[in-house]
Amino acid sequence: MIDKLCDKIRKTGAPIVVGLDPMLSYIPEHMIKKAYEEFGETLEGAAEAVWQYNKGIVDAVYDLIPAVKPQIAMYEQFGIPGMIAFKKTVDYCHEKDLIVIGDVKRGDIGSTSAAYATAHLGRITVGSRTYAPFDEDFATVNPYLGTDGIKPFVDVCKEEHKGLFILVKTSNPSSGEFQDRLVDGRPLYEIVGEMVDRWGQECMGCSYSYVGAVVGATYPEMGKALRKIMPKSFILVPGYGAQGGKGKDLVHFFNKDGLGAIVNSSRGIIAAYKQEEYKAKGITPENYADASRMAVEAMREDIAQALG
Amino acid sequence: MIDKLCDKIRKTGAPIVVGLDPMLSYIPEHMIKKAYEEFGETLEGAAEAVWQYNKGIVDAVYDLIPAVKPQIAMYEQFGIPGMIAFKKTVDYCHEKDLIVIGDVKRGDIGSTSAAYATAHLGRITVGSRTYAPFDEDFATVNPYLGTDGIKPFVDVCKEEHKGLFILVKTSNPSSGEFQDRLVDGRPLYEIVGEMVDRWGQECMGCSYSYVGAVVGATYPEMGKALRKIMPKSFILVPGYGAQGGKGKDLVHFFNKDGLGAIVNSSRGIIAAYKQEEYKAKGITPENYADASRMAVEAMREDIAQALG
Repeated sequence: MIDKLCDKIRKTGAPIVVGLDPMLSYIPEHMIKKAYEEFGETLEGAAEAVWQYNKGIVDAVYDLIPAVKPQIAMYEQFGIPGMIAFKKTVDYCHEKDLIVIGDVKRGDIGSTSAAYATAHLGRITVGSRTYAPFDEDFATVNPYLGTDGIKPFVDVCKEEHKGLFILVKTSNPSSGEFQDRLVDGRPLYEIVGEMVDRWGQECMGCSYSYVGAVVGATYPEMGKALRKIMPKSFILVPGYGAQGGKGKDLVHFFNKDGLGAIVNSSRGIIAAYKQEEYKAKGITPENYADASRMAVEAMREDIAQALG
Repeated sequence: MIDKLCDKIRKTGAPIVVGLDPMLSYIPEHMIKKAYEEFGETLEGAAEAVWQYNKGIVDAVYDLIPAVKPQIAMYEQFGIPGMIAFKKTVDYCHEKDLIVIGDVKRGDIGSTSAAYATAHLGRITVGSRTYAPFDEDFATVNPYLGTDGIKPFVDVCKEEHKGLFILVKTSNPSSGEFQDRLVDGRPLYEIVGEMVDRWGQECMGCSYSYVGAVVGATYPEMGKALRKIMPKSFILVPGYGAQGGKGKDLVHFFNKDGLGAIVNSSRGIIAAYKQEEYKAKGITPENYADASRMAVEAMREDIAQALG
């Protein structure tokens, strides 16, 4: 799957992942109204609005991008109907040949991590049959529990040829509280980065390993250091756009082959229609997805310019 | 909810939480067969077996214990039907007046952490109505992302009078890879413990804060140090029984009031019927839940003896 990601980035010229993190407040009023008319003001109604909204965006951008990254929390908050909308989104993106990065930030130990890995990347046997429960292609994973927590995910990735992005240095302001603390004179995130490199050595694709890392666009200097520590790991870079990261900040996350990083934008793309810039171009809530397409094109341009 | 937890521990004399972490291999053959007959060898069939198995255990032990801790990964691996079984288990335990600790180990930043908090502890507004999606009473949370990740959970806990257990020192062998690394001469888990204490100061129950910690029974000396660092935090202690922790290891996790810790056992209780000890007492797969009751009683005795 890491090789497919490289191929698709080369073909689209867009090292971009669209974060499908819908909030009800992003969804155009007419779509909310229609969903509530059909399902009532229920969790089912909210989940239907989320799903229809996602579908519109995916239809508008799927040919421009290699991957999407649904943030499962945004679905989980609508309970079971939300989880059904998550699964429908994953399946629909696969129909459109998009790679799906499940932003699930799971992480536990032993058999529990194995169960999460099965849920999101693997297959489970029930009697004489097997099922792929949520069936994403990559999952984000939290490293705090150490190798015991990561190994079960790596095992499933090897079997299924899928991949991981391990949280190394997150994009948020307080990420330094623990991640930047000095251990033997070096920040903890570098120690985690070294482990990511090591975990990845046993499962390599053509040029990159199945084990990638999450490093926030908001910390470009740290990205530069981590790029060297994990030369064979793809970096998933959140924090571009709404969180403040710019195209020029991204340069150091890439390798010389022009690969090695994929940049996420969520709100800046999926809710682009709310920005004055796109309103001025004639975008209305009815054609919200056209703004998402324009925003992807602008982001591709911004990154291409930065990478020269 | 933390006050209710204290009350129930006092009433039952059992600082015990039963981990409802069902694996298909734990479930008696006759229950599996019945579920597959009704729903086929499907995710629905597996989820039905899990739910019926849980129900039997809850019916057998609910009057002896204050709380249960379903591990959501074990349900998530069965996809949507598994999540439905999780929710049914939570609701059924509430009917039996049990406190439900959702072992979800979620953690993200900002609006995403807020969405997880809403999903598991809070309520969501859909039009003019509100819903409690999964509705546990406590949730376990991963601290790696810092205060940005924890604060949205704390906010929901204040509003709903619910609580958290933050991962501080986990019970697994490799937990030390990052958690034990020395920061200014002190292990990282102590730094996290200090933050747990601080996060809890703004949301106190009668004697304990809404913000507790997870510290493994397998590391009693570290538990002793952490007990002092977080005097007002309840400690959720995994690793008793199957993972090797003994009653005597638990002493240091408790305060002098006899409270301050709640000890989890999963396999040792829910799959007790598979142990030779209980087979010798006439337990068969048909009355598996009776073994769970005996195992709870034995664990209560073991802890009471250790605490003197």
